[in-house]
Amino acid sequence: MRVNKPKPDKAGWEVTGETEHYADDHLAVITEQVRAPSRSHPKAWTTVRRKSAVVIAAMTRDDKLLLVRQERIPIRAALWEVPAGQIDEAEPRLEQIEATALRELREETAHVLASDGELVALGDFFASPGFTDEQEYLFLARPVEPLRDQKIDPEEAIIDCRAFSIAEVQEMIARHEIRDANTLSICARLVARGLIQFVPR
Amino acid sequence: MRVNKPKPDKAGWEVTGETEHYADDHLAVITEQVRAPSRSHPKAWTTVRRKSAVVIAAMTRDDKLLLVRQERIPIRAALWEVPAGQIDEAEPRLEQIEATALRELREETAHVLASDGELVALGDFFASPGFTDEQEYLFLARPVEPLRDQKIDPEEAIIDCRAFSIAEVQEMIARHEIRDANTLSICARLVARGLIQFVPR
Repeated sequence: MRVNKPKPDKAGWEVTGETEHYADDHLAVITEQVRAPSRSHPKAWTTVRRKSAVVIAAMTRDDKLLLVRQERIPIRAALWEVPAGQIDEAEPRLEQIEATALRELREETAHVLASDGELVALGDFFASPGFTDEQEYLFLARPVEPLRDQKIDPEEAIIDCRAFSIAEVQEMIARHEIRDANTLSICARLVARGLIQFVPR
Repeated sequence: MRVNKPKPDKAGWEVTGETEHYADDHLAVITEQVRAPSRSHPKAWTTVRRKSAVVIAAMTRDDKLLLVRQERIPIRAALWEVPAGQIDEAEPRLEQIEATALRELREETAHVLASDGELVALGDFFASPGFTDEQEYLFLARPVEPLRDQKIDPEEAIIDCRAFSIAEVQEMIARHEIRDANTLSICARLVARGLIQFVPR
């Protein structure tokens, strides 16, 4: 897939130029001349374009959340995070986004959505919207069940996977042990929507 | 400042090579050969390096949060977000991070920390740790007060600034209207630590 996809026109936004500095299969660095709706003149802005991704809150039948411990090369650290992964399609339809969420759940946690389970769409968020167009689609999958004879994909940089109670997740966020945007953002959405509860301290 | 700062060695992580593809004052694209602690061999990984940033939950004396409406060129949209901004120093000390937080508060909201106020450090998070080393330092500033005769910096892409009650912020997150990692992540930290409360729905 070409990451440097053209941006659709949006009302009030006008693009008058674009220069590509770098591009590979995963990202592209672009300087654009863009006139924002509130402005009379275009402004030069450098953006890193990247594929969209899915982020999954996988809840077990006893209301625990699956977290994976993942070695992250850019920051030289292993973090406890919710499972997530990139969407291959440039302009994905909802079915493709959902299929990616279920695939990443299986590959990263060796769990699947139960036959009586539901996949609840929780909207989206942008990881760093002044810097990149990276967009994450959020899902709650409940309940999930372990797959027999399935192991976590060894190609993934995942060194552990465990189920944590919501109280444990709250404590890990409060202690600054959970510190990635995916996990923090999906927890904010889940709590705001009343799908999980953090207890007053 | 040079964004492409060398990464400090961390126990168990070994870097055997690095190629720079692109660099400007704001970001650098690097392919590194890195051996992670759980691996026996190095792996090639492309990272975008970027300055660290501060993210501020600015609370008024009547317990409202200041949000700014910001035009974000990479995503061609205006979002309601907490104030935030980049840290100039490559290896910032705590005082420099705190000074940046207070400066961004003033520039983006035309508010300052009250003379009887406190700046509470809320840890950090990574915006997209498989992709970039961008790290955000979180602060609660309370209470904040408007600066007389001060306007929002016209160089900022900010088109509005308002105070929202915590119930309004919860509703905006639940309705998917707040959709940037900074605001969602700092709200998760604030709720987990009991510094604000989202009501069960």
